[in-house]
Amino acid sequence: MKTVVRGCPGFKFSGCAAGLKKNGGMDLGLIYSETETAAAGVFTRNRVQAACVKLGMERIKSGKCRAIIANSGNANCCTGEQGVLDNRSMTRFVASEAGIAEELVLSASTGVIGKPLPVEKVERAVPELFKSLAAGGISDFAKAIMTTDTVPKIVTRQGEINHTSFTITGVAKGSGMIRPDMATMLCFVCTDAAADPKTLQKMLIKGVDPSFNRITVDGDTSTNDMVLLLANGVSGAVINSHDQVSVFQGLLDQVLMELARMVVKDGEGATKLVEIRVEGARSDHDARRIADTVAQSNLVKTALFGEDANWGRIIAAAGRAGVEMDPEKMDIYFNDVCMVKNGIGCGPDAEIEATNILKTPEFLIRIHLNAGEGACSVLTCDFSVDYVKINADYRS
Amino acid sequence: MKTVVRGCPGFKFSGCAAGLKKNGGMDLGLIYSETETAAAGVFTRNRVQAACVKLGMERIKSGKCRAIIANSGNANCCTGEQGVLDNRSMTRFVASEAGIAEELVLSASTGVIGKPLPVEKVERAVPELFKSLAAGGISDFAKAIMTTDTVPKIVTRQGEINHTSFTITGVAKGSGMIRPDMATMLCFVCTDAAADPKTLQKMLIKGVDPSFNRITVDGDTSTNDMVLLLANGVSGAVINSHDQVSVFQGLLDQVLMELARMVVKDGEGATKLVEIRVEGARSDHDARRIADTVAQSNLVKTALFGEDANWGRIIAAAGRAGVEMDPEKMDIYFNDVCMVKNGIGCGPDAEIEATNILKTPEFLIRIHLNAGEGACSVLTCDFSVDYVKINADYRS
Repeated sequence: MKTVVRGCPGFKFSGCAAGLKKNGGMDLGLIYSETETAAAGVFTRNRVQAACVKLGMERIKSGKCRAIIANSGNANCCTGEQGVLDNRSMTRFVASEAGIAEELVLSASTGVIGKPLPVEKVERAVPELFKSLAAGGISDFAKAIMTTDTVPKIVTRQGEINHTSFTITGVAKGSGMIRPDMATMLCFVCTDAAADPKTLQKMLIKGVDPSFNRITVDGDTSTNDMVLLLANGVSGAVINSHDQVSVFQGLLDQVLMELARMVVKDGEGATKLVEIRVEGARSDHDARRIADTVAQSNLVKTALFGEDANWGRIIAAAGRAGVEMDPEKMDIYFNDVCMVKNGIGCGPDAEIEATNILKTPEFLIRIHLNAGEGACSVLTCDFSVDYVKINADYRS
Repeated sequence: MKTVVRGCPGFKFSGCAAGLKKNGGMDLGLIYSETETAAAGVFTRNRVQAACVKLGMERIKSGKCRAIIANSGNANCCTGEQGVLDNRSMTRFVASEAGIAEELVLSASTGVIGKPLPVEKVERAVPELFKSLAAGGISDFAKAIMTTDTVPKIVTRQGEINHTSFTITGVAKGSGMIRPDMATMLCFVCTDAAADPKTLQKMLIKGVDPSFNRITVDGDTSTNDMVLLLANGVSGAVINSHDQVSVFQGLLDQVLMELARMVVKDGEGATKLVEIRVEGARSDHDARRIADTVAQSNLVKTALFGEDANWGRIIAAAGRAGVEMDPEKMDIYFNDVCMVKNGIGCGPDAEIEATNILKTPEFLIRIHLNAGEGACSVLTCDFSVDYVKINADYRS
């Protein structure tokens, strides 16, 4: 891995304030590739899907892309036929400005559900977006897709295939699986390596599973979530062989994992980033169900906020995960401190040590079932008074 | 239905402060039947179960009971072999004071998980509990099982079978499916009607399903939940025929439903009681999944607290319930106000009307899928800043 750089060769980025956000902040961004890219995408599994998700699922089938237009401040979801037309218009504005086919433009929206998109504001802003396109414009793009995010989220990694170095740059927004009005998580990854769309899609699915699919802020799933991966091949690094896939997958996983961590760390109202790791389950699937249930328990998350080493809530959440288990074989650790051995608390000294760990901003809660080899990790954050305030006041 | 009375003929109740709660409040209660009762019970489905749950599941098989001893301030869960012995001791103290078989005594505990139960305090208090037993002692009992509850919860109904009137009195504690440390929901129902234990068990299961199994404060399930039903038959009203079962079931359902409502209304930090009713689903099962998902969504619940008619969160929660649906056929009503028609918002006037409804303490959110005859209701409450404060500070 070489030094960290921003952007990605052959891609340009920009962002601007188009007037979609009430506060006048940046709210419209463009990613533009100078050459045609191979493209892959994964989309929300919510049955209620925004216009951009439906269009993206259709267009990604071609495996090609030139540009992504993304806005914050409005999810353009549950907006009916007009919303579908408005979404297509967004991509048409970009296509006509660039002189490319409309089918090569993808779109993404995030913000309030159910409000008509003021598409004329997008139309007015698109020429400005093209004027300000720059290799270093990714910071503006990252800001333009933020909603309640407090920091922009960009990760860059470099690797080598056949002595040719290549770059992967990812940009994401979101404070977890959950965002106000659910228009939550967007992630765009660019690379100058080359791969066919099928290979890209496989690698993306593989990379998303242990990263974005294993984080939670509070378990709600967006109507607008998407992760797109574009590969323009301008580096000359070509992904063909199994070994080359491995190299690229390794680096892609790093980018996605780091972005996923950033999303949870910036979770609404969050003060702590916590890894829930379940080990010794009968299967990885069992481990995952338990990790998910503990990571999403409001009781566990409020205790984390209260810096209360209340392991009873952890064991009880594990117990309702719907997995066969023997509570009397369960061990629980906070970092390296054993809190529970064979289902029974380790006493006041362990609680004092654990309470000190709880005061730190990042730590691990490890649950060992002593029943097999199954394991899974899920990233979560604490559940604070600010979370409720942010979400009670969001639209007002 | 006759006038509402407290207590139930043939049963006596008491409560006292045994020193289990830090604040010195009432924390130990006794229900005592002068004659042997037929008994039925339902228990938590959490895999982690308190000693009292395990013992109760075993002893309820006999279909007989004379007394229930219940404590708050300590869940006696994850307390190992000592916890099992301590729980048995609780029932033995009662049995020996009453001169009855230990197997006729059931126990229930609620409070912090993982702390040893100071059983000597229970032993000292049991004689006092017997001395203060009274038909009108149910208020003391109801107070003795409260944890973060703000009001005691007692419901009495009277009915008639073959011109013989009978009483059903239920008492419950809990602020929903969730309680601090999960030692959440206890409910004891007494009746002076007579029925065999199998019939009682059937009626109890039937009654619990649309009441306690369809409420949520935040979806966590206790390690200590139980609902017990005791029938002593002293009224002379005997439940035998199908019609008699119907009469009793109807009244039992009322008692359980009313107690369940009281539990949600007293939900931790709750300011609103909201019924989520799903209609027009392809099946009752589908309707229930959607109602559960909406009722448990933190985004929906924080919007309710914020009095924000944010229907986008409702539709998005419905969309992630894992049920096949057509969002473009979905209608959403706040009481009688149509907010969403065919998946699209009904505009600012409807939002203003809905916002006024949101300012009231109790209302209905009705989701119609227009896809079939399936329906289900779930009771929930809003999710407030106080909820987080209560649960972040609980043990300290």
